Amino acid sequence: MVVIMKPKTSEEDIGKMISYIKDMGLDVMTNRGVDCTVLGLLGDTSKIDPDTLMLNKHVDRVMRIAEPFKKASRKFHPEPTIVKVGETEVGKEGDFTVIAGPCSVETEEQIIDVAESVKSSGAKLLRGGAFKPRTSPYSFQGLELKGLELLKAAREKTGLPIVTEIMSPALVERFVEDVDVIQVGARNMQNFDLLKELGKTRKPILLKRGLSATIEEWLMSAEYILAEGNPNVILCERGIRTFETYTRNTLDLSAVPAVKRLSHLPVIVDPSHSAGMSWMVEPLSLAAMVVGADGLIVEVHNCPEKAWCDGAQSLNEEQFKSMMDKMKAIGKHVEKNL
Amino acid sequence: MVVIMKPKTSEEDIGKMISYIKDMGLDVMTNRGVDCTVLGLLGDTSKIDPDTLMLNKHVDRVMRIAEPFKKASRKFHPEPTIVKVGETEVGKEGDFTVIAGPCSVETEEQIIDVAESVKSSGAKLLRGGAFKPRTSPYSFQGLELKGLELLKAAREKTGLPIVTEIMSPALVERFVEDVDVIQVGARNMQNFDLLKELGKTRKPILLKRGLSATIEEWLMSAEYILAEGNPNVILCERGIRTFETYTRNTLDLSAVPAVKRLSHLPVIVDPSHSAGMSWMVEPLSLAAMVVGADGLIVEVHNCPEKAWCDGAQSLNEEQFKSMMDKMKAIGKHVEKNL
Amino acid sequence: MVVIMKPKTSEEDIGKMISYIKDMGLDVMTNRGVDCTVLGLLGDTSKIDPDTLMLNKHVDRVMRIAEPFKKASRKFHPEPTIVKVGETEVGKEGDFTVIAGPCSVETEEQIIDVAESVKSSGAKLLRGGAFKPRTSPYSFQGLELKGLELLKAAREKTGLPIVTEIMSPALVERFVEDVDVIQVGARNMQNFDLLKELGKTRKPILLKRGLSATIEEWLMSAEYILAEGNPNVILCERGIRTFETYTRNTLDLSAVPAVKRLSHLPVIVDPSHSAGMSWMVEPLSLAAMVVGADGLIVEVHNCPEKAWCDGAQSLNEEQFKSMMDKMKAIGKHVEKNL
Amino acid sequence: MVVIMKPKTSEEDIGKMISYIKDMGLDVMTNRGVDCTVLGLLGDTSKIDPDTLMLNKHVDRVMRIAEPFKKASRKFHPEPTIVKVGETEVGKEGDFTVIAGPCSVETEEQIIDVAESVKSSGAKLLRGGAFKPRTSPYSFQGLELKGLELLKAAREKTGLPIVTEIMSPALVERFVEDVDVIQVGARNMQNFDLLKELGKTRKPILLKRGLSATIEEWLMSAEYILAEGNPNVILCERGIRTFETYTRNTLDLSAVPAVKRLSHLPVIVDPSHSAGMSWMVEPLSLAAMVVGADGLIVEVHNCPEKAWCDGAQSLNEEQFKSMMDKMKAIGKHVEKNL
Repeated sequence: MVVIMKPKTSEEDIGKMISYIKDMGLDVMTNRGVDCTVLGLLGDTSKIDPDTLMLNKHVDRVMRIAEPFKKASRKFHPEPTIVKVGETEVGKEGDFTVIAGPCSVETEEQIIDVAESVKSSGAKLLRGGAFKPRTSPYSFQGLELKGLELLKAAREKTGLPIVTEIMSPALVERFVEDVDVIQVGARNMQNFDLLKELGKTRKPILLKRGLSATIEEWLMSAEYILAEGNPNVILCERGIRTFETYTRNTLDLSAVPAVKRLSHLPVIVDPSHSAGMSWMVEPLSLAAMVVGADGLIVEVHNCPEKAWCDGAQSLNEEQFKSMMDKMKAIGKHVEKNL
Repeated sequence: MVVIMKPKTSEEDIGKMISYIKDMGLDVMTNRGVDCTVLGLLGDTSKIDPDTLMLNKHVDRVMRIAEPFKKASRKFHPEPTIVKVGETEVGKEGDFTVIAGPCSVETEEQIIDVAESVKSSGAKLLRGGAFKPRTSPYSFQGLELKGLELLKAAREKTGLPIVTEIMSPALVERFVEDVDVIQVGARNMQNFDLLKELGKTRKPILLKRGLSATIEEWLMSAEYILAEGNPNVILCERGIRTFETYTRNTLDLSAVPAVKRLSHLPVIVDPSHSAGMSWMVEPLSLAAMVVGADGLIVEVHNCPEKAWCDGAQSLNEEQFKSMMDKMKAIGKHVEKNL
Repeated sequence: MVVIMKPKTSEEDIGKMISYIKDMGLDVMTNRGVDCTVLGLLGDTSKIDPDTLMLNKHVDRVMRIAEPFKKASRKFHPEPTIVKVGETEVGKEGDFTVIAGPCSVETEEQIIDVAESVKSSGAKLLRGGAFKPRTSPYSFQGLELKGLELLKAAREKTGLPIVTEIMSPALVERFVEDVDVIQVGARNMQNFDLLKELGKTRKPILLKRGLSATIEEWLMSAEYILAEGNPNVILCERGIRTFETYTRNTLDLSAVPAVKRLSHLPVIVDPSHSAGMSWMVEPLSLAAMVVGADGLIVEVHNCPEKAWCDGAQSLNEEQFKSMMDKMKAIGKHVEKNL
Repeated sequence: MVVIMKPKTSEEDIGKMISYIKDMGLDVMTNRGVDCTVLGLLGDTSKIDPDTLMLNKHVDRVMRIAEPFKKASRKFHPEPTIVKVGETEVGKEGDFTVIAGPCSVETEEQIIDVAESVKSSGAKLLRGGAFKPRTSPYSFQGLELKGLELLKAAREKTGLPIVTEIMSPALVERFVEDVDVIQVGARNMQNFDLLKELGKTRKPILLKRGLSATIEEWLMSAEYILAEGNPNVILCERGIRTFETYTRNTLDLSAVPAVKRLSHLPVIVDPSHSAGMSWMVEPLSLAAMVVGADGLIVEVHNCPEKAWCDGAQSLNEEQFKSMMDKMKAIGKHVEKNL
């Protein structure tokens, strides 16, 4: 941490700041520059709140040098984290885990049909929304607990572990019982209360990046879960909010190598919610694989009238199979095994 | 709602789409354009999910014409909403309500001292953080329940109603008992579970705009609360996330006239968290008042060593008084009574 | 400037970096931290390119401490710059200069009519587009040189100095002859070639902030003009590009106090192009005045059928007069004289 | 184009608007909705300025249905455009063109050395900055005309065609003589004056996407060039400006499939300027290739002390060769031939 004092601060006031810092158990190196004096803080600065230092009228700026995340940081945990979900090892080098399923769980027939289909195409986990985060209170909120039951039926039938989004801390216990991977949606990435509760479990958590979350904030949200003792965090890049309106969000694929460098946690990509257009799902999925992601979470729907439902952001079962075949073929050459 | 069909869609397929829409209880007007056919939907389109229409392979785009919010909309509720908090009427024409207090509740002496000071300067409500939303799990999380007790002590002493942030739906009952205005932080603006719970109470809710929430999303979050039956929502603009790094956030003052036009709910401004610099608080507060806001929520701290704590985003007690005096003087000329 | 070395860099490599920096004529203070070594550079670092230092494999990050702008900086030029345009002194303390006129110059009758009207309402300068920056090559590009002639006719008639946008460096000489203030549009804020040419003149330049320009980049563009020897730069905040779509741009009023703190240059606000809605112009203009701006540039049109043309972003002549009356009344109380 | 009238507009006023539109040579279909009346305009709406319609007080909103670009649109030009540069055919199906070279041209030895090296690794064109767009007027602005001469010497030696950025319309003639592909930088994407001049030539133009340009604006800038008669436009995605600060820009790879769908123009990717970190260049380049781009433009530098210059955003010659080998190997499996 570096504290930049305002120009023309008196020696006396600089001295007071140095004493204040030393009283906090840190050491200080003083750079008397041309314009201003810069204090380098030495020691464990992780608990220091820059805002507290900023209260002093002689302080111009405070800059952090060290990263604020510890448990999530590769510096402290050089080995990659592998999250086990049934037989699948998410984050294992050489593996590429595909999670697939419908946007919402609708009926038993639908969810089982899609589950069987995506499984045969190579998906390792089943996704499906039971509790839907809707911008409007008037939109379909999901089948909720009934939806969980249907997901379990699909798991019973196919053996696919289930991934589904939680909206309320009150349901943590229920999800721990019923679900294999608990998803935290983008809009809840900084629902710290929810993160702490999930951190108290040992359940794998799929943590989606917030709509405008910086990579640092995303890793600090992971830190909330890890700090409570739950090491099983899978990160998910799903597009960020920008000025561009052609795509629903802007998929930030550079976040994948960034996270791989900063953290040891596995990171997957959601090519469906990011661009919001089914015809973009395949190219973005291929790009996600070669950029180094550990997997994907893809929307696949089952539509009785295939001639009707060929649009939006979901793939149909045939498109998904075709994409998986292509990914397996290319995956061989980039050391990604589906 | 307008459905734009792809170019060269056959008459038969357009016919199928028209039937599908009519089956949903709507009527359709068909525009056969040069390039493509555009269907205008007539009737109550609020429950229709554009994504469902987008599933059809012949649909190019769907555009909403009507606003998605109803209860929050001035069209449905032409009279301005006035939220009563004790003697104060937030949103009453001609009134300008200032809420002030420290960032965090620290000690009984501190909170009472600041409460007395801001009250004498003209603040009508006291703010103070008991449960702090911190990006880092290692940062001070607030005094929590103890903090609520201290806020109550300050209310007891000064008569100022208290405004404080809730982080967990599990605490709704406690907050309803103890607190006068329950604040929903920017990071929880789309915590739909929390919004629904708060909607079931009749407690005034201060709803902060999310870091990257569009005005429409913000009003839809208000809609969640209103839809459950709680009419007492006060909106709060606190800056949005942009590329600019000089200020912590970019205060979007145009959101105030925008909200005043679209909705009947009162809207106040947070000049402290937006720019993040104390010397900007006064100009931004004056600007908020003349742009038409119904009030402010300002950070004011009490620092024993006045010579020390003159920075960051908080004002000290003297700066706050000075600002309030200026605002009262100017307020007279813009029909804003503090 | 601070150079942060990567953890575990050998003493030998740190030594080589220190020598490299000293060879550039600077001095170095070395902070050996817990995690890494931080080098504080002392001396004139303005010409050092951080990218050059970043080429070294042992360098993790380089942070600038000092501001990169010099001539535009208040540190180097404590006195406010006043730009004289005819009788008007833009930036003079206590003055608030309003520039008004139509979006485009259309006919002699139109431009003279609007000029006379805005002058009687208190505008000090006339704006009007002769060369229009259009996103589409098929849109009306302006009357161009003919438009300049019409502006001159209006100046002849009313005495109002003219402000108009230049699109090409080839026209600098012509503009210097004909125009009183040369406007650089938002899309040309980093047209460095154009800025250098304008810097070689002594003509007042109105420099609009780029759609996504940081305050620092904006001041560096001013620096380009100042560095060539032209001190007469007026900055103009016109809204920045964000995710919000309700308004055309997001007016960043905090940029005004920011620029007032960092620079000595006058800064005005464009309330017309920012939000893009005429009914927002008055509240945003009042807010701009009380937040500390030195003036405004407002679109006012002349519409023969008043019943017809009451929308978009332009004010009509009556609305402008009404707004000016209100601003004069309030201006008295905030020491702004129109 | 769709014109949405305000609620409660009288039949008489709607009639006036319909007449106004018909007078412009268009036909109108009228939708009388529950809330408001919507007019569908039929005919060639490309020249209509929505702002003109918005002037009418009864108009609430105007929405474009058709795309504003024509010559750039795949609808009007279904065949992919192939831009010939020497022997290379940029945009040819199955080809992947790599352009490589240093950030700036520094010395004859440097540029020739890098040219020979990148050529042997498989690059087809040489890039090098002679005129540099620098945010600061004090930074190295490039060797300028001398730099052009050095690039020509490198072309003489290696046969590699040269790509370099133009900053001024005054130099168009010189560039047409000396250079093979003229680059328009991100900051000049809406320098309409420059685009028109380049449109009058037949020289291949590399058009970089602006820092905050929407895909539509980018294609409209291409439209400026095409409209003047020059069909040889190559688009280049180089990252957009967002709130994320870890990367210099956010590379928007979804822009590639988007542009491929909307337009017939070839599109390449700049993995160097986007993220701004050399270690990200390889994964982003692979991702660009599999997402469907027609090529890359990569920064490669020549550093005498290889142990020194291994950072920043440039690759060194060895890293470039290694990346090219990997790309050739994977390219075979995605039908991309380097």
